[in-house]
Formats: sequence, structure tokens, C-alpha cells
Amino acid sequence: MAKLKLQISVSLDGYLTGPNPGEEHPLGEGGEALHEWAFKLAAWREPHGREGGEVNPSTEVFEDATENVGAVIMGRGMFGGGPGPWSEDPWQGWWGDEPPFKVPVFVLTHHEREPLVKGETTFHFVTEGIESALAQAKEAASGKDVALAGGADAIQQYLAAGEVDEMWINVAPLLLGGGTRLLDNVGPEIGLEQVRAIEGPDAAHLKYRAAG
Amino acid sequence: MAKLKLQISVSLDGYLTGPNPGEEHPLGEGGEALHEWAFKLAAWREPHGREGGEVNPSTEVFEDATENVGAVIMGRGMFGGGPGPWSEDPWQGWWGDEPPFKVPVFVLTHHEREPLVKGETTFHFVTEGIESALAQAKEAASGKDVALAGGADAIQQYLAAGEVDEMWINVAPLLLGGGTRLLDNVGPEIGLEQVRAIEGPDAAHLKYRAAG
Repeated sequence: MAKLKLQISVSLDGYLTGPNPGEEHPLGEGGEALHEWAFKLAAWREPHGREGGEVNPSTEVFEDATENVGAVIMGRGMFGGGPGPWSEDPWQGWWGDEPPFKVPVFVLTHHEREPLVKGETTFHFVTEGIESALAQAKEAASGKDVALAGGADAIQQYLAAGEVDEMWINVAPLLLGGGTRLLDNVGPEIGLEQVRAIEGPDAAHLKYRAAG
Repeated sequence: MAKLKLQISVSLDGYLTGPNPGEEHPLGEGGEALHEWAFKLAAWREPHGREGGEVNPSTEVFEDATENVGAVIMGRGMFGGGPGPWSEDPWQGWWGDEPPFKVPVFVLTHHEREPLVKGETTFHFVTEGIESALAQAKEAASGKDVALAGGADAIQQYLAAGEVDEMWINVAPLLLGGGTRLLDNVGPEIGLEQVRAIEGPDAAHLKYRAAG
């Protein structure tokens, strides 16, 4: 059965981006450090076109979250900033000419737009809400899993809808003290089941099933 | 070297008490469930005068945090509610006639008061601030560790002061959606070092060193 799954890195105080995100700090001040555990991995470096890297207990987590993915869903903010599609220079996103996804990506947005092809990745813009995006992504994934890439708002909406089958939360050993919290606006009606807890050298990895 | 150490149970969204704490729900709505992992343990039940219980991977965590403790520090709210000492019926705390500590307890407060003896536990009321309380507790502990019992405000103050040597955060697989967050008002200036991550059957246990 195809799953909707996510993995996300947060600080010990629960932020997935730090304070004052912008051009200088896309992930907010200090936010890059949340992902150090992944940047070190051979499993992260290879699909990003870089050599070397480690194999350590975090590798299993990274592969579990990223393998067998046939489509991706993300919020508009994660696709990237810039002016809207009505502009003469419509937003091209933050992912460059060769985004790492290489599967169809469904972007939650309020603005209709034709699909955007970047390298091996096509971004589809979905204005009909999260359930429609999930249905389209599942169809595009052809039986593989759908990865929910973020950000916080999109994840909170899918959690509240009871649609998240697997959630890896990678807890980096640092405090950001501000920014956007992953788990705000979500309440006790979301049943969680602890599936795993793994000690990586640079993060603790907690896996949950989320029931509606 | 005697350490200041703490262990605290939080929800996945980071709350150590749920919404609307009061007579009916001392730990807030849903807050009791944060401690289920401990209530099941033989290591918790024995000092609380109860029989039975489990030995599982959480036992090591519970014992690491509770063994070799020679004194306890807590905030006024954790000592317990009720009218102040100027009342005809001064507050006796929430811990009954036989509190489980059985070592000197130092309560951070703004109100001077003579020590209060309850069973094998004496509560000392410290009005000179956190550093004074820590010095008094270390002296009383005679070389053993000092446990910081909570609540959030006291923990945040000691973290900000760089005085927490060991911190076990027990993450219960549930969302509270409101209440008091453990890690608010603390920022990136507090350096954390991840020491352990242990998968218990009913909680994930994360241990950190906190540097100033």
C-alpha cells in the first residue's frame, strides 16, 4: 500500500527553521545546522552529485524516508519565493535547473499555473487543496510512496487530516530559540504510535505512525 | 564531580504540562499520559510503595536520572499551590505526608519561610535565586548529584545559566496541543551535546549535556 511519508529535521526546541529566514538564511538563522547529520551521509551526497560521505546509523533513516518515493508534495513556501506567475518573470523556485527530486512534485498553492519542468523534475501546481494534491501525487507515484517535503503548514494540514502514514523526526542537538515550529496548531486528536527511535551520531531519529 | 541533572517527560510537541492545569488535572489535560512510560516501571513503583512493574530499556534511563541524588531543586509551582505562608493555613504542597524525595528539597520562591518537614523529606525555601539554591543543594548533597525536578521556568533559568550537566528528555508519543513548553525562552547560546538516544517501549529517551 502506497504511503504518505515525511522526514523532517528539527531543533530540540522543535523548530524546523530558525528566526528571520530570508536571502541570507533561507532556513532562518542557524537553520542549516539542523541538516548537518544528513549532509555528512554518503546517502545524501550521492543524489546531490557530491562524492564521499559517511555510512552511519543515520543512513538507514535517510534511506527509509527517501527510498521508493514516486512523487513529492510540498507547500508553496518550500517551492520557493519570488513574484507570482502573473509577473513577467514568474517565480522559478529555489531548486535550480536540476532539482534533486526527479519525480513529479505537487506544490500546494492558491495560484493556478501551468506545470514547470526543471531538469528531470516537473512541478505541478495544485489549487484544490491537500486531498486533491494527495490523490494526484498517489496516481503519479504509481504504487510507490508519496513524500511530504514540508513546510510546517503543509505537514500540519496533512497531520490534522489523518493522512500521514510515517513520520521521521530528526532531532538535531541544538536550540534555535525562534522560527517556525513543526508541531504547532496540531492537537491531541492526532493519535501517534512510536515506531522507532535511533541514535545517530549527530541527531536522534524518532519515527511515528500518525492516525487520524 | 557532583552534577546538576534533570529528567523530564514531554509530548512530541514539547509540552511538559497540558492545557488548563488545575485541581482536576494537575498536569493539565492529557498531561498524566506523559509519564505512562515511568509508571509501568518496577524502578518507579518500588520507591512509590507499589509492587510489580516492568524492567525494560527505559529502566536504565530512570535509574540514571534518579540514582545517586543527594538533593532536589524545584520551582514554587512544582512544590504545590495553595495560600502563602502568611495565611493561617500555609501551603503544604502537593506531595502529601510522605514525599518520595527523602533528600533535602530546595524550593525556589519569592517568599521566605521556615523549612517544612514532611516524612523523610525537608523542604527548604530559597529566596536568593537559582545560584544560591544550587550552592545550598550541592552542599546538602555532600558530593552526590543534585536533581532539578522542574517546572519549565526553573529548568529554563538553569539552562540559560549554563548549569545543567545532564538532561534526559523523555519524549512521549502524543501531542498535547497546548500547555507549558519545556524549551521556550531559551536560545542558541546554550550549546547542547547529544549523549544518548534510547528507544523505550513507550517513550524515546534523549540525553544531552548542556554547556553554558
